[in-house]
Amino acid sequence: MKNIGVIGLGLIGGSFALNLKLLHPKFNIVGIDINNDHLDEALKLGLVDKKGSLVDIQDSDLVVLAVPVDAALKLLPYILDNLKEKSLVIDMGSTKEAICNLVENHPRRSQFLANHPIAGTEFSGPTAAHVELFNGKTNIICDIEKTDNRLCKSVIKIFQDMGLKLTYMNSRDHDKHIAYVSHLSHISSFMLGKTVIDKEKNEKNIFDMAGSGFESTVRLAKSSPSTWTPIFEQNKENVIETLEEYIQNLIKFKNLMVSDNFNAIKEQMKSTNYIKKILKGIS
Amino acid sequence: MKNIGVIGLGLIGGSFALNLKLLHPKFNIVGIDINNDHLDEALKLGLVDKKGSLVDIQDSDLVVLAVPVDAALKLLPYILDNLKEKSLVIDMGSTKEAICNLVENHPRRSQFLANHPIAGTEFSGPTAAHVELFNGKTNIICDIEKTDNRLCKSVIKIFQDMGLKLTYMNSRDHDKHIAYVSHLSHISSFMLGKTVIDKEKNEKNIFDMAGSGFESTVRLAKSSPSTWTPIFEQNKENVIETLEEYIQNLIKFKNLMVSDNFNAIKEQMKSTNYIKKILKGIS
Repeated sequence: MKNIGVIGLGLIGGSFALNLKLLHPKFNIVGIDINNDHLDEALKLGLVDKKGSLVDIQDSDLVVLAVPVDAALKLLPYILDNLKEKSLVIDMGSTKEAICNLVENHPRRSQFLANHPIAGTEFSGPTAAHVELFNGKTNIICDIEKTDNRLCKSVIKIFQDMGLKLTYMNSRDHDKHIAYVSHLSHISSFMLGKTVIDKEKNEKNIFDMAGSGFESTVRLAKSSPSTWTPIFEQNKENVIETLEEYIQNLIKFKNLMVSDNFNAIKEQMKSTNYIKKILKGIS
Repeated sequence: MKNIGVIGLGLIGGSFALNLKLLHPKFNIVGIDINNDHLDEALKLGLVDKKGSLVDIQDSDLVVLAVPVDAALKLLPYILDNLKEKSLVIDMGSTKEAICNLVENHPRRSQFLANHPIAGTEFSGPTAAHVELFNGKTNIICDIEKTDNRLCKSVIKIFQDMGLKLTYMNSRDHDKHIAYVSHLSHISSFMLGKTVIDKEKNEKNIFDMAGSGFESTVRLAKSSPSTWTPIFEQNKENVIETLEEYIQNLIKFKNLMVSDNFNAIKEQMKSTNYIKKILKGIS
């Protein structure tokens, strides 16, 4: 492995390129991005060795697809069509079912590894890239049996060297569970931000009252709409299901308040405190 | 000022006692708590100079009431009844209207300062106390015109020495706004935790999929139910109003998804990104 094409030089692609270069200084990393400013920035920041375009795919031993999930659907068939024999393309998207279904019957399906590092911040663009992004994080590999395992080996070694903890599941389960533990958090945060802004935007000094608790719950509302809109679109069914359950829980909580049943509210919060045990494994 | 009675040696009371002692080593700080284990811990941790009981109030120059807001309503009239002339009692509660209304006509109303430091973590008890808790945080003082300003002076100096930034408003406005920027965050977080636990509790390995985004949005679901139940109860009307608006926003978002109107979803997220500017002032 020598020539690497990284498509999309935002937070994820930029951080991946940066880590690759540190692990393998001899790799030749070509950056590809529709945003030329991002390309220039990535080059300046040393994330990539040179600027390139989709033509460079045919010389790449590894292609890293780190673009919004709608763009990934458009690009992946083209990449597979143009990939050398024994080269591999991996994606980094937050949805896995649509992309796996799309190339299910592609003659080069075995040259694609469906992949999702659970790493990210609310920041975006090449300047958000950093070397510690993946260290200690979970990386979910989907439908691995559909990828040529001789091609997987070196990229799995790279993931491990970056500090990623590998988990395997099928793409359908991935999308179902990720709706609960990631996508719903983003909606809850965006709508919390919206509710407060709608009400309080004319009273700017009110935000002096907001503390770290508010900050924590609305942090994800800083996330990129271009990244998240297609994620919600591709995981529509699962997200709607989680959202309905969340809304029902909120309505029940409200009704308990309306009927002054604060004992039940206390019990519900007590049992939800169980989240402490769960979170111990994350932070 | 020499004798200080701190009632409630949890995160807030414990941190306040700790800061007081550092600023004024000659103060004699008496700890009062219905939980004797907490008292012992607080003494062992050096948060207080000695263990005491409500009897000690009559010798105190300053009483700090740092208990759950339901307990505060029970204790404050008793404290005022037993307070020396020229002594002051301050509270630390997250609701202000109920406590201010309660003592509105108390003959010693002017010896009470209604106070709310916007500081806290999801942890509780004396061991959670730390010296930096208040540094740089907002402290809201309510209805200050009802407190004897000669008595306020030294405690305001203490607040400032602890690094608190002072803000003034009436207790009614406090409760209305804090419902948006604090209480709603807690409910959104608790219900998010509940939704995910209900669905995923039998699939513990799923939580490996959860990243820092999930952790951030459910962090407040670790908060103490004994602290938060009476807050929701005392701020019932305002909290129900914010909760209704939040639920409506979530329902609208869900309906946009159902009708595949992802352009509108993107626009909504874009305008909510405005939260970035707001949060800059917080973190």
